[in-house]
Amino acid sequence: MAPDEAALAPATAQTPTPTPTPVPAPAAIHAAATSKYSNRVLLRTVLERSDDGLGLVGERLVVGGWVKSSKEETKEAPAPAAVPAAEHKDVSCVELLQTRIPLFRSIMKVFGGGSHPIRRRIEAGVAKSPPPSPPPQPSPPLSLAFLQISDGSCVASLLVEVDSSIAPPSLLLPTGTCVLVEGILKRPEAQGKHTIGLKAEKIIHIGTVDQDSYILSKKRLPLDGLRNNLQFRPRTTTVASVMRIRNALTFATHTFFHDNGFLDVQVPIITSTDAEGSCQKFHLTVLSRKTSLKRDQTVMKENAGVSVEAIKAAAREKSKLVEELKRTDSNREALVAALQDLKKTDELASQLEAKEKLKPGAPVKAEEMKFFEDFFPNETYLTVSGRLHLESYACALGQVYSFGPRFRADRTESPKLVAEMWMVEVEIAFSELEDVMKCADDFFKFSCKWILDNCAEDMKFVAKRIDKPSIDRLQSVLSKPSVKITYKEAVEALKKATDNKEMKIEGGVVLTAEHLSYLADEIYKSPVIVYNYPKEAKPFYVRLNDDGETVDDGETVAAFDMVLPKVGKFLTGSQSEERIGSLSKRMKERGVPQEQLEWYLDLRRQGAVKHSGFSVSFDMMVLFATGLADVRDVIPFPRSFGNANC
Amino acid sequence: MAPDEAALAPATAQTPTPTPTPVPAPAAIHAAATSKYSNRVLLRTVLERSDDGLGLVGERLVVGGWVKSSKEETKEAPAPAAVPAAEHKDVSCVELLQTRIPLFRSIMKVFGGGSHPIRRRIEAGVAKSPPPSPPPQPSPPLSLAFLQISDGSCVASLLVEVDSSIAPPSLLLPTGTCVLVEGILKRPEAQGKHTIGLKAEKIIHIGTVDQDSYILSKKRLPLDGLRNNLQFRPRTTTVASVMRIRNALTFATHTFFHDNGFLDVQVPIITSTDAEGSCQKFHLTVLSRKTSLKRDQTVMKENAGVSVEAIKAAAREKSKLVEELKRTDSNREALVAALQDLKKTDELASQLEAKEKLKPGAPVKAEEMKFFEDFFPNETYLTVSGRLHLESYACALGQVYSFGPRFRADRTESPKLVAEMWMVEVEIAFSELEDVMKCADDFFKFSCKWILDNCAEDMKFVAKRIDKPSIDRLQSVLSKPSVKITYKEAVEALKKATDNKEMKIEGGVVLTAEHLSYLADEIYKSPVIVYNYPKEAKPFYVRLNDDGETVDDGETVAAFDMVLPKVGKFLTGSQSEERIGSLSKRMKERGVPQEQLEWYLDLRRQGAVKHSGFSVSFDMMVLFATGLADVRDVIPFPRSFGNANC
Repeated sequence: MAPDEAALAPATAQTPTPTPTPVPAPAAIHAAATSKYSNRVLLRTVLERSDDGLGLVGERLVVGGWVKSSKEETKEAPAPAAVPAAEHKDVSCVELLQTRIPLFRSIMKVFGGGSHPIRRRIEAGVAKSPPPSPPPQPSPPLSLAFLQISDGSCVASLLVEVDSSIAPPSLLLPTGTCVLVEGILKRPEAQGKHTIGLKAEKIIHIGTVDQDSYILSKKRLPLDGLRNNLQFRPRTTTVASVMRIRNALTFATHTFFHDNGFLDVQVPIITSTDAEGSCQKFHLTVLSRKTSLKRDQTVMKENAGVSVEAIKAAAREKSKLVEELKRTDSNREALVAALQDLKKTDELASQLEAKEKLKPGAPVKAEEMKFFEDFFPNETYLTVSGRLHLESYACALGQVYSFGPRFRADRTESPKLVAEMWMVEVEIAFSELEDVMKCADDFFKFSCKWILDNCAEDMKFVAKRIDKPSIDRLQSVLSKPSVKITYKEAVEALKKATDNKEMKIEGGVVLTAEHLSYLADEIYKSPVIVYNYPKEAKPFYVRLNDDGETVDDGETVAAFDMVLPKVGKFLTGSQSEERIGSLSKRMKERGVPQEQLEWYLDLRRQGAVKHSGFSVSFDMMVLFATGLADVRDVIPFPRSFGNANC
Repeated sequence: MAPDEAALAPATAQTPTPTPTPVPAPAAIHAAATSKYSNRVLLRTVLERSDDGLGLVGERLVVGGWVKSSKEETKEAPAPAAVPAAEHKDVSCVELLQTRIPLFRSIMKVFGGGSHPIRRRIEAGVAKSPPPSPPPQPSPPLSLAFLQISDGSCVASLLVEVDSSIAPPSLLLPTGTCVLVEGILKRPEAQGKHTIGLKAEKIIHIGTVDQDSYILSKKRLPLDGLRNNLQFRPRTTTVASVMRIRNALTFATHTFFHDNGFLDVQVPIITSTDAEGSCQKFHLTVLSRKTSLKRDQTVMKENAGVSVEAIKAAAREKSKLVEELKRTDSNREALVAALQDLKKTDELASQLEAKEKLKPGAPVKAEEMKFFEDFFPNETYLTVSGRLHLESYACALGQVYSFGPRFRADRTESPKLVAEMWMVEVEIAFSELEDVMKCADDFFKFSCKWILDNCAEDMKFVAKRIDKPSIDRLQSVLSKPSVKITYKEAVEALKKATDNKEMKIEGGVVLTAEHLSYLADEIYKSPVIVYNYPKEAKPFYVRLNDDGETVDDGETVAAFDMVLPKVGKFLTGSQSEERIGSLSKRMKERGVPQEQLEWYLDLRRQGAVKHSGFSVSFDMMVLFATGLADVRDVIPFPRSFGNANC
């Protein structure tokens, strides 16, 4: 799977005669589609029109983007044409490029391309200094650069044709070069996948690329290699598509809840409430490690604060990269570099380990710790779940949801769990289990439909490049109702699945994540809702089912999980226990300290109401839509055990 | 200002004859407005109709909510009517209440009102046990309870009339009681502020209140008192209105950026990038204080982990409450309780201080610290700003925004700054300062218009109860363009303001937050944008203006702030420095360590583009709309120095 794979420009393109066109007044620029806040036309508004942009042929417009691929064609040199001075009212980059290319390149190295006079001034024709005389040198041999540029607004790229009399191809051709171009939309002269192209008349900005150090210069970089280059990752076609789909799912989420009368409540990230108790949490301090840990300055300095475990984790990552590079056999240089890197990392890990064994620890002076001067009086950590907080708003405002980051410090390398994940949490007053199961299912189906309706081009790309059945999978969700079975029925169904030994279960066993996935992937081949769990399997706040309300053996709780093919469990919900006696009892059974949760118990003491809710792992929904396998590839800046780059 | 001030039911209400109506099949319940996920009608859909709900008179519906105020009226006792057994197919709460009130109350204490059979079973007529015989006791004297109930979906409350033959008034009348009621909509018989009321036919659920311990039983609780009862706060009319306005602003934010072609990018909360350097940050560890700090178990235990400073802060808070209670003179008991509380807190602070002085600290064993086994290899903290991360997405996808929590560990008691605040951050590629100033202004105006268009009733309430000019303030924003002046012009304007000595400034002085507020509040009486700041006043990543581009003396940067009347500075933006030479130089000048920001510098090395953005303090926008003075009153669970309750 290649993140950057746009095809080259059609090789058969003709070489049109360069005919300098007078720069028009700004008013002539196609105004209808110009972005309000960047004075350029978003490519989506041209390339995703129902007529593929053909209705705009002949329009003059400004576009900006990054070169995805490129090609140069030489053509016969025409007689050098004097450039009319009136068109160059300012020291434009066009002139600079034509006259002082070596100088210009060195300036670009220093200033990154930003030293060009701003575009408005060019357009407004403000002449701060008299235009330099036309260059006396003979013109270089003329050629045409064909650039496919993308601006991130859509999958498609625009074919831009730049005559070498306008800008030197060597600056434009490298993958990743940023250009801001004014030109005229035209039909490409050659047949190809593009129905429309832009004939450049002016290059307003060039942001150059150093091909040797630019990671995206290399084709076919695997996704896990990109994770070490988070800053450039969204410039790849794949990650850009994934992030647009993620964006669409975000807006779908707010739209669904808004349209159904829910209020968005921003629950706290810093909390003193331990909702789950079952996972590791991130604790907070206002003291940095440097100030709090002065025990061994030498070790600290030599290690730069790095732990052996983290280095080992990094070594494992690097080892994976090496394997991948070996497998694809595409880039010999990258492989050598990766091997050296891995060797260094392994050495460092061994050194550190030895050192730590030698120095079991000089004591820290407590006055250096100053924990007592910390910011909050109580122990605080990053929230694992906002559902308990949300309950207090549901028990006042009725129907509420929250959408935000949640945290777990579990030392896992699971591709489905990272330290910081976005969750959608929902709570509804005057509701019971059945209500929220319906709400969860409606929300999921709404989201799938939204993606199909609003991300057609991105989904086509996903189906082509990442996961062929992705569109079918979304459509299949909409074409039939989700399967809804009790926990007991789920157990029965798995017992019948005698063909798979691993999935076979004996009575009384708690279903694992693998069991649930098997239901969705193999048995029902559909999203599956499993409800009425044994009480041991769910948190203390889940409502105990009334006697006789279920046909299951033993005590069950009003809880459910929703499982998707390919992704597994991504949503979990329940009716909350609103009876204080029952709630207190379960807290005692579980050893949940009651003092910390008095505020939560209060909701049952005063004006209690039946209420229910659920939590959705938003990142897993993005996985479902895109068919990717690792959440780190669908989160802009993923944080996982041993990794918090940027 | 009273958060709970709904008036009592009209005192002149007539006493209609109780006519038991047969319970209809569920299908007869007004389906059009029923919430999809809670089987009741949201009050907003009745009370905010253009006909004030009159078109629904005669409709049968189920509503649920909490009693805001109530009143009981006795009426002449009619001959006891035998209750037809057919209407009580289950052991309904109606019967329980009529026959076993003392028993029922004790059950309610234990189970918090949740032990009633569920509504669906009542409606479906499922008879699990034979109905008990009608009670032999004589009926109590008949009366009518008038309840004003609110369900949080709108400001208005619905007047519900409950005959004592249906449920005992003593259970229903206390403020805060939760009820789920089925009844018929009717015109109230007396003239009053309500145009429509509900005649109850069945009480499906009662969640009782213990008046002695329920904080909202007391009228006129000030907002700062409510901050100690975050779990109940949204049940007050004021906080509910504020949270609905906050919700509307949230959706307006997503709508504005979606409609203008921006992509929502979720930037990381955990970060190793220090964007500002100017403020205190929260650092992360996976070790709790208990495991990392074993130095003095006795002190820990006795103090319960509480710091002297935090206790002192709590004492200051409590002292404020005492003053407020003294001033309003409304609740003698609360004042006495608050005084005792304050005394205890002061004593504890003194004891702790003495103890800490006595014990300068026994050493901690370093092996107990285990910092080297922490989760991330590098120092990580909670993000202060997501703008740098957002830049990398703008330099790939074009127009992006992020909406999420940001953190500062500044030890301040400013009403405008808490530890966890929500920010809207925006970044646009191919844009300059002027573009983002326009975008920021458009976004702000769009939000103001959205509130006026979508929160009319809440804004009426705000204008009546919190801040009279609030609606005018929003309208005034829309009626004229925002003032846009350079920093130099701002200084000149302030120099001319000779009538105010505090605001008078001498040349060369950096403008303070107070100066900026003075511009908006006193000089221009309008939102003001101040741009082209002296470079010393802004962070390292702000773009140095090109020579000759500004008319100001000295070196200026392409940065701006936006200031609002009453609220002050709430938005800050800039064109980012895209020239690597210039950026490196400024980092060196500022002493910003470059190693940590190599990824950020990369964006200038490879395909650089001019780009600009801004950050909005979302909580301050809620302050502007509501006229409140303290952000802690507009954030669901505020976290400030010394406070992280719940």
